[in-house]
Amino acid sequence: MNAEIIAVGTELLLGQIDDTNATFLSRQLSEAGINVYFRQTAGDNEERLKNVIQTAAERSDIIILTGGLGPTRDDLTRDALSAFTGLPLKEDEESLDKLKSFFEARGRGVSESNKKQALSLKGADVLPNDEGLACGSFLEHQGKQFLLLPGPPRELKTMFMRYALPKLRNGMEDQQIQSDVLRFYEIGESQLTEKLDDLITNQTNPTIAPLASDGEVALRLTVRGPSKETNEEMLRELKEKIFARVGNYCYGEGDSQIEQVTAELLRELEKSISAAESLTGGLFANTMTSFSGASMIFPGGIVCYSNEAKMQTLGISETLLEEHGAVSAECAEAMADGCRRVFSSDYGISFTGAAGPDPLEGYEPGQMFIGIATPDKTVSHFVNIGGSRNRIRTYAVKQGLYLLFQELRNKKGG
Amino acid sequence: MNAEIIAVGTELLLGQIDDTNATFLSRQLSEAGINVYFRQTAGDNEERLKNVIQTAAERSDIIILTGGLGPTRDDLTRDALSAFTGLPLKEDEESLDKLKSFFEARGRGVSESNKKQALSLKGADVLPNDEGLACGSFLEHQGKQFLLLPGPPRELKTMFMRYALPKLRNGMEDQQIQSDVLRFYEIGESQLTEKLDDLITNQTNPTIAPLASDGEVALRLTVRGPSKETNEEMLRELKEKIFARVGNYCYGEGDSQIEQVTAELLRELEKSISAAESLTGGLFANTMTSFSGASMIFPGGIVCYSNEAKMQTLGISETLLEEHGAVSAECAEAMADGCRRVFSSDYGISFTGAAGPDPLEGYEPGQMFIGIATPDKTVSHFVNIGGSRNRIRTYAVKQGLYLLFQELRNKKGG
Repeated sequence: MNAEIIAVGTELLLGQIDDTNATFLSRQLSEAGINVYFRQTAGDNEERLKNVIQTAAERSDIIILTGGLGPTRDDLTRDALSAFTGLPLKEDEESLDKLKSFFEARGRGVSESNKKQALSLKGADVLPNDEGLACGSFLEHQGKQFLLLPGPPRELKTMFMRYALPKLRNGMEDQQIQSDVLRFYEIGESQLTEKLDDLITNQTNPTIAPLASDGEVALRLTVRGPSKETNEEMLRELKEKIFARVGNYCYGEGDSQIEQVTAELLRELEKSISAAESLTGGLFANTMTSFSGASMIFPGGIVCYSNEAKMQTLGISETLLEEHGAVSAECAEAMADGCRRVFSSDYGISFTGAAGPDPLEGYEPGQMFIGIATPDKTVSHFVNIGGSRNRIRTYAVKQGLYLLFQELRNKKGG
Repeated sequence: MNAEIIAVGTELLLGQIDDTNATFLSRQLSEAGINVYFRQTAGDNEERLKNVIQTAAERSDIIILTGGLGPTRDDLTRDALSAFTGLPLKEDEESLDKLKSFFEARGRGVSESNKKQALSLKGADVLPNDEGLACGSFLEHQGKQFLLLPGPPRELKTMFMRYALPKLRNGMEDQQIQSDVLRFYEIGESQLTEKLDDLITNQTNPTIAPLASDGEVALRLTVRGPSKETNEEMLRELKEKIFARVGNYCYGEGDSQIEQVTAELLRELEKSISAAESLTGGLFANTMTSFSGASMIFPGGIVCYSNEAKMQTLGISETLLEEHGAVSAECAEAMADGCRRVFSSDYGISFTGAAGPDPLEGYEPGQMFIGIATPDKTVSHFVNIGGSRNRIRTYAVKQGLYLLFQELRNKKGG
């Protein structure tokens, strides 16, 4: 079985946005053992859409169309597939009910154009949209499988993982695929892959694929075998080999990123943390509150962007700021102490430095101090991160989380 | 003339990287007045490459192949085009000399596999690679134009802009293209396009294309004409028509999003704002500090996730929290007042509500109060946003910025 992805949208052909949906789907399909040999992109034009569907149907078994399911006149994907297959469009009751209650809650009726979003094709299975209003479809027609998925990435991802992928995997149960992710810190991708070179190169089962994302390296381990049990055994053996070489750099497994792992440790230890942020401007607080149930471990934080704010809200003394500057180990430590006191938390973390593009108090963009206040001591770390303002702030938060994680792991171990 | 882009590389089909080359080329071509109606992606396989070239040659005038020009066995793009056209490969002297001196400088000879990078097709113009070693090609064959460009983005961009685009634009010098973006708030995409329906439908010059992204709608206006002056006049007339119908929903033009426009207004009025965030957990502060020079207008903010934090840091009374709850108009207003006082800022904004997935104090996920404290008065707004926790928080910040923008625009107007 091989799949072809067709991305629909004139905004793609005008180069206004990157087609990240195609990347996401390609990765998911290849991990599920479905080959992607071709991708196409077409604009919001019914004739040309029919042309790409025709081309795909001639060379691929599974045709996945993304985008063009919305309410506007430009959204033509359903119509094009209907014209190509000769199957009429059909209103889905459940999707229509959802549209009605959505607009009723806003005191409006459902306009004709919005009703389009509840349309599927005759004979197709409707795929619910848990993140939006346009429903998707799964259709088997003349030996081919067709998927219609919405364009907004969040909607597409959820619908694909929850409802579409299980249908595509139908019948492939004799080949079980299992994968897991190991997450690392304080080690670069090249260093990590060098240490595991013989396990990565020319291996087909199991496979190890490095995934580099914002300031972090992870490895995806994938095994294929006849049963869940053999797969789990294979995964366990592989992990043991990896841990023996680079286990001290591994902070967690699976989907949990450093913020979740750290939050879990805090919960386990029944400790709380607060934040005082200058450089990171609230990004640490935002990260700690991005999952539910955070209020037990994160009472709050202070974004103190100006020096006045540092004095007013955290009680940093004017003398300290004059003598050492706001970008200093002393200020970072006073900020960490300050928020720990204000929020009566067990730990406090602080970020002060130059986010760029200009230097600050003699420090180059990316140079910063991260302070950590614990029940026993207060320390600070000098960190230097390259890149854009956005990258510097994102990596700074990761770095702070690594430091905090180490602190908590030592605490737990001791 | 219409162009089709073919990206070559198995790493794309495995979802290991985003195809940013296709985005870049699409934008450059569309700005140059060359329509891109289709794109394709194929892996490093000669048969399938010939298939996509065949498909492209049937429906497009210009076929641009990117990637697969390197020295490895996987680099097959030249061979595929040679097989498709029947034109033999031909070594380019200049490119070969460049390879030789490159490897000589490193004390090595040019290996046979590296020599591949100096190959072009018989009858093609060779395109120099100023950033790398693999040369490109421009070929006119049976009424079609073929471009071979390298895959690494830096090499591709330089070669395309310096050597390839001028060849494609040959004979089109009389056509200038200009575009602008209008940004809207408090109006949905379908409502907006309905009001402008006659200006959007079946128009080829000027064109209006809706761009929807996280909680916001924008329109890209594009005109084509013989000179910059006529284009600007056409754009001005089009904008006037749009403003006459939906001008009150437009907050800005060009690249500046609502946070930049609001920050600009604050700067102009010499006012500052601080934030008290529960629901949004620091995301508003993070947004306001995502560009440099924020400290003048945003001294800081408080993330008060727990009720204790609301009392300790913002002086919210226990009575208020007991009588009205943390999710209430009263609390939102007290939070906005509180941060305005703590940071001595001109304005204060607050967010309190249910971020989900669970209801909070009887409010469903997405229901929230946004408080705005101004020098004259303090008000709050009830807002209801659907979707995931992440979406709710992201849209809440947008909504807060819209409210603040309106407040400031009224202030400036009055």
